[in-house]
Amino acid sequence: MKKRNFLVAQSGGPTSAINATLAGVVEQAAISGKVGKVYGAKHGIKGVLEDNLIEIGEMLQETHAMLRLIHTPSSALGSCRHKLKSAEDDPATYKAIFDTLARYDIGYFVYIGGNDSMDTVHKLSEYAQEQGIDVAIMGAPKTIDNDLYGMDHSPGFGSAARYIATTFAEIWCDAKVYDYPTVTIVETMGRHVGWLCAASAVARKTGDAPHLIYLPEVPFDDNKFLEDVKEQLAQHPAVVIAISEGIKRANGKYVNEDNGNAKVDAFGHKHMGGACRVLEDLINNNIECKVRCIDFSLMQRCAAHLASPVDLTESRILGAMSLSRALEGVSGEVSVLTRLSDSPYRVEYSTVHATTIANLEKAIPREWINARGNFVTDDLIRYVEPLLGVPFGEEGCAKHLCF
Amino acid sequence: MKKRNFLVAQSGGPTSAINATLAGVVEQAAISGKVGKVYGAKHGIKGVLEDNLIEIGEMLQETHAMLRLIHTPSSALGSCRHKLKSAEDDPATYKAIFDTLARYDIGYFVYIGGNDSMDTVHKLSEYAQEQGIDVAIMGAPKTIDNDLYGMDHSPGFGSAARYIATTFAEIWCDAKVYDYPTVTIVETMGRHVGWLCAASAVARKTGDAPHLIYLPEVPFDDNKFLEDVKEQLAQHPAVVIAISEGIKRANGKYVNEDNGNAKVDAFGHKHMGGACRVLEDLINNNIECKVRCIDFSLMQRCAAHLASPVDLTESRILGAMSLSRALEGVSGEVSVLTRLSDSPYRVEYSTVHATTIANLEKAIPREWINARGNFVTDDLIRYVEPLLGVPFGEEGCAKHLCF
Repeated sequence: MKKRNFLVAQSGGPTSAINATLAGVVEQAAISGKVGKVYGAKHGIKGVLEDNLIEIGEMLQETHAMLRLIHTPSSALGSCRHKLKSAEDDPATYKAIFDTLARYDIGYFVYIGGNDSMDTVHKLSEYAQEQGIDVAIMGAPKTIDNDLYGMDHSPGFGSAARYIATTFAEIWCDAKVYDYPTVTIVETMGRHVGWLCAASAVARKTGDAPHLIYLPEVPFDDNKFLEDVKEQLAQHPAVVIAISEGIKRANGKYVNEDNGNAKVDAFGHKHMGGACRVLEDLINNNIECKVRCIDFSLMQRCAAHLASPVDLTESRILGAMSLSRALEGVSGEVSVLTRLSDSPYRVEYSTVHATTIANLEKAIPREWINARGNFVTDDLIRYVEPLLGVPFGEEGCAKHLCF
Repeated sequence: MKKRNFLVAQSGGPTSAINATLAGVVEQAAISGKVGKVYGAKHGIKGVLEDNLIEIGEMLQETHAMLRLIHTPSSALGSCRHKLKSAEDDPATYKAIFDTLARYDIGYFVYIGGNDSMDTVHKLSEYAQEQGIDVAIMGAPKTIDNDLYGMDHSPGFGSAARYIATTFAEIWCDAKVYDYPTVTIVETMGRHVGWLCAASAVARKTGDAPHLIYLPEVPFDDNKFLEDVKEQLAQHPAVVIAISEGIKRANGKYVNEDNGNAKVDAFGHKHMGGACRVLEDLINNNIECKVRCIDFSLMQRCAAHLASPVDLTESRILGAMSLSRALEGVSGEVSVLTRLSDSPYRVEYSTVHATTIANLEKAIPREWINARGNFVTDDLIRYVEPLLGVPFGEEGCAKHLCF
C-alpha cells in the first residue's frame, strides 16, 4: 500500500521552542516508517489555503542542520494569525484547504500552535469526519504565555521564563550600581495572563529584584502602586518592578488606554504607548527619583541562546507524539503533558481533545499571588523553576560579592 | 619592611567585564606577595572621598566566588560619575582623597573606568607627585562604547558586541515570521560613537539583519532614511534597522531633540523619548507597514550570560597588569592592549600615559562606513568578530532552514 504523505505547519506568535516541535515531527515521520513525503505549509493554515507547500523531508538527512533547527527561534516555516470561521459561515475556505490536502495526498496533518490554532485543529478535524475525508489532524501545543488549558505548562514558556529570570538577575546588578534612588520598570508580554511576568520572581534566588510584580490577574490601582514604590524606595536605593503588558485598572481598561498617549499616524492607525510608559509618568509626577523603562519586546520569545533544555526536549517529544497518534488514526486531539512532581521534576505525556484548549486562557490562580497583589507566592516559584531547565543561579550573579 | 596596602575602585557605566578586571587586580595582589591589605572603595572615587572603604582581600579565599564574580555584570563595588575638578579649583577634594589614602596606608591605587576616570587617574597621580605623596595610581580601562584611545578596543565592548550581534540574529528570525511588510528599529547605546550599533553587522553571518545601520558618525537625513527603508521593503518583507541612540541631523542636533516629544514632569525635569520613537513616527507617517521599536537598554551592557570569554580574559589581565606596574612604582598610566593580527586574533599588552585616554572619544573611521552612510564595511566586521570570543553563527539560527 502506498504510504500517504504528511503535512506540518506552524502558527501564532514565535517562541524559542516551536522549531524543536517541528524537528520532533519531522524525525518521527522517519522513525515511524509509515509516511511518504513530508511537507511543510508556509505561514500556517494560510499556506494550505494558498497551496504554498514545500517538501522538507530532506532536512532530516543533515543531522547538524536538525540540531541547529532545534536552537533556531521563531517558526522556520513562517507563521500566521488566521482565525477560521465555521464551515457553515465560510465553506469556500474549508473546500480550499481540503482540496490542497487531497492534491498532495496528505493523510496526516500536525498543526503546531496556541489556543486559536487548536480551534483550527478542532474545526478541520470535525469537518473531515463529517465529510468522510480520510485525514488525521492533530495539534501540538506552543505559546510563551503559558495560558493553555489541558496541560501543566505550555511548550515555549520555559524558555521565555528562563530569559526573563536571567535578565532580571542581571538588570538588578546594573540598576543598583549608583548610590541614588532609582526605579526600573520592566514590561513583559502577557496581554491577558501574567505567567511570563511572574517568572521574574525566580531571579530573587540570586538578587533582590524584582521588588514588586504587577499582573493582569489583579486590578491595578495607581495609588496603591505609588505607596508600594515609596515603601520599597525607603528600603532599597534601586527598586526593580516587573509589570505585565496587560495590567488593567478596576474599570477593566488597560492602564495604557485613556491616558492621552495614543498617537494617530498618517494612515489613521492608532498607536498606544506601553503600560511601562504610563507608570513611568506616574512615578515621575509623584516621586523624586530616576525612572527607567525597559521592554523585553521580541527578545523574551526569541532569545534561543537562553532556551530551556527542558522546554526544547518536551517540545520535541510533544511534536513527535502528535504525529505518532495521527498515524494511529487519532484526530482532533492535542499532545499534552502532566506534571507528576516538582522535585524531582517529572512529567507524563498524553493527548486531550482540542476543545479542552481551543479559545481558552488559563490565568494564574489567585492563591499564587500575594494578598496585596504585588508579588507571587513560593508555590508559583516552585512551579516555574524546573521549567527553566538549568539550576538557576549556580552561575551568574554573586549577590554576596556585591558589596 | 611593612607591606603597604592596596585600594581598588570602579567607576562609570556598568559592563559585563568590569568585575573580571576587579578579580584580576585582587588575585594579582595575592600573586605579587607585595601587598598588605586589599581595600575596595564603594561607588568609585566618591567612596574614597567619603571614607567608604571595605576590606575585600578575603574574596580570594573563595575560588568559586571569584569565578562567579568574573561572571557577575556591573560593578560589584558600586560606581559613580564624579568628574574631578583641578587641584587649584578644588583643593579640599584632593585633601580629602589623600587623607583617606594616608589613613589606610594605601601605597597603590587602581581605578577601573572609562575616559573620565582616566582623567581622575591623571589628576590624582600628578597631585601626588607634586605634593611628594608616595602612592602609585594606575588606571584599568573599561567601557562598552569602545571609544577609548590608546588601545585596540575597550574592555567591556566585546561582551556588549556579542549580545548585540546574537540578539539581532534572533530578532531577524522573529521579525520575518509573518508575510506582511514590517520594519523593526533597534536602538543601541552610543551617544557619541557608533561602535555598539555597528557590531550588529556581525549578525549578517547567520541571517539578513540588520538591513540598515545608522551611526552618530554620519549626519542623519530623514528623506534619505525613508528612501532607504522603501528600497529595503521592496526587497524584503521584514526590514530590521540598527540605530545608535546618538544619531544626529546635519544641524548637529540629536534626532530626538526638537521633536515636540519631550515631557516635563512634576519636578520640572525634561524627559525625551528615544531616537527609535522619532523614526517610528517618521515611518508611520510616510510608509504603510507595521513598525516596531526595540531598545536594548541595560541588557546590552549587563547580559553577562553572553559575555565574551575573550573580553573577560583580557579585562582580567589588564586589571592585574595595572597593579603589577603600580607595585613597580609606575603612576599615572593605564594598561592597554594592541592588536597584532585579526586571524589568528593576537594582542600584546603595555601601558600608556593616562592623558592618551582621558576625556577623548574614538569614533569609527569614516572608511569603515559605506559611502551612503547606511551600513558598515567588511573591515569593521573583521575587526569586531574576534572580540565576541566565540565563533559566531556555529550554533543558533540556521538561515538555510528558514524556508
